[in-house]
Amino acid sequence: MEKLIFNGEFIDRSASKVDVEDRGYQFGDGVYEVIRVYNGKLFTSQMHLDRLIDSAKKISLDVGYTAAELEILIQQLVTENQLTYGTVYMQFTRGAAPRNHAFPVDKIQSVFVAYTKVIPYGGEVKSGKQAITTEDIRWLRCDIKSLNLLGNILAKQQAVEKGCFEAIQHRGDTITEGSSSNISIVKDNVLITHPPANLILNGITRRVMLHLCQTNGISYREESFTISEMMNADEVIMTSTSAEITPITLIDGKVIGAGTPGPITNKLQQLFHQEIEMQCGRVYSTT
Amino acid sequence: MEKLIFNGEFIDRSASKVDVEDRGYQFGDGVYEVIRVYNGKLFTSQMHLDRLIDSAKKISLDVGYTAAELEILIQQLVTENQLTYGTVYMQFTRGAAPRNHAFPVDKIQSVFVAYTKVIPYGGEVKSGKQAITTEDIRWLRCDIKSLNLLGNILAKQQAVEKGCFEAIQHRGDTITEGSSSNISIVKDNVLITHPPANLILNGITRRVMLHLCQTNGISYREESFTISEMMNADEVIMTSTSAEITPITLIDGKVIGAGTPGPITNKLQQLFHQEIEMQCGRVYSTT
Repeated sequence: MEKLIFNGEFIDRSASKVDVEDRGYQFGDGVYEVIRVYNGKLFTSQMHLDRLIDSAKKISLDVGYTAAELEILIQQLVTENQLTYGTVYMQFTRGAAPRNHAFPVDKIQSVFVAYTKVIPYGGEVKSGKQAITTEDIRWLRCDIKSLNLLGNILAKQQAVEKGCFEAIQHRGDTITEGSSSNISIVKDNVLITHPPANLILNGITRRVMLHLCQTNGISYREESFTISEMMNADEVIMTSTSAEITPITLIDGKVIGAGTPGPITNKLQQLFHQEIEMQCGRVYSTT
Repeated sequence: MEKLIFNGEFIDRSASKVDVEDRGYQFGDGVYEVIRVYNGKLFTSQMHLDRLIDSAKKISLDVGYTAAELEILIQQLVTENQLTYGTVYMQFTRGAAPRNHAFPVDKIQSVFVAYTKVIPYGGEVKSGKQAITTEDIRWLRCDIKSLNLLGNILAKQQAVEKGCFEAIQHRGDTITEGSSSNISIVKDNVLITHPPANLILNGITRRVMLHLCQTNGISYREESFTISEMMNADEVIMTSTSAEITPITLIDGKVIGAGTPGPITNKLQQLFHQEIEMQCGRVYSTT
């Protein structure tokens, strides 16, 4: 029977139930993380857990656990559910209280939920994906990995309805990020990606990728770029925990660069694969 | 035993439980309404239910009920719970499905929750309240009454921590609305309020108030106004289902107008009280 963590307890997935006045359900008053599992091991979990606690702090939410305590719990969950390849999804909400916008006056317990999902490891080389561009209508604190994701959902849904993999959002002329990924471009062998600020989530895969650039002599700049700079880039790359490092080769029906995954994208995918193997041991494609 | 509606069924409040993968819980993928009850009768319910269905349409959410069907259900709930003065809170989410930003491919049932809360009727004349101003950091579809309310929460919390009743939000120099209310000002006997557009929720109390202006010879304009126009207004008014028509007499520590509820605010409160009595019968202050 698949298990789920509910407030620190391991319970059956099917028995998990949330109160209708959980502030996560009525306000999206909470934060979350998704951590990838390879070979039964958590990948970059420290970075994810630090960010979780950081996101929580930004909305004055006390999660009641240290990153180290959380890591032990979710590793137990992975073991319990015999997960080899997949993700751990985890979220904290401010808890259940009579509905009121302001935080509850009396201290209430935050609600912690974590569960696992099986997803195959896709191998280090991915085919080029299609994307659309869309106006970024989200709030101005996209640095917080919060449960307020309606803007992201509506953007992603637009992409899916057009047969595309991702929606690349822009504020005015500036590309911010994808609906569930960061976006980078390569021009003249330099990787360019939006600086971490309030308008994007500082993605963990993005940060690993920049570290890999740094340690492997690939030039990069953390700078915003425009729609037209992206459309005229040599390569466009999306990164996320689920998509890892994925080439985007067609945007709004227009071919990017040579129309195939470019050399820097391919190189970064190989390096990322090595990074996974370094942290989690030898992995085999399960697709 | 207090009842709650869960997907059309009347169940005990304490028995209500939501799945952790309800999209409302993970994405805030849903819409809501709060309807006031006076004398056991729903006030302006038609307008609220029409807006609920409109909000749902804007996020392509099929609620699966007509406004008329919902009205019957929630009136039953009010009767069942013997509610005389209070509110009905109701929300629809897109339902439970394995977590994925895009809408579920297979049709799933939206999740409908409604419950009641006792709140006293505060009488037609209210004392002046204090407010703060704060930058509006919310998304660009505030016309949708969605469950993505973290921006609103953080604004309200700032107000509460400063001993104030409401946070008045502005984008740059333009006042948009309160964290859970619409804001209007009175200058030289003309009421001015932000036009309904994507940056504010078109409040029902706001609309009733404008109707009362129209039918009672009070001049008004639906026009945006600046922070400094508000600070120098003769009167500032907040409106919402919970706050009804409430005067704001101190903002960021600065006295507004004469520092007491102004004549147009008072007049509108009386007219609003009459409107309630017309729809719901004679009401008495329960505070």
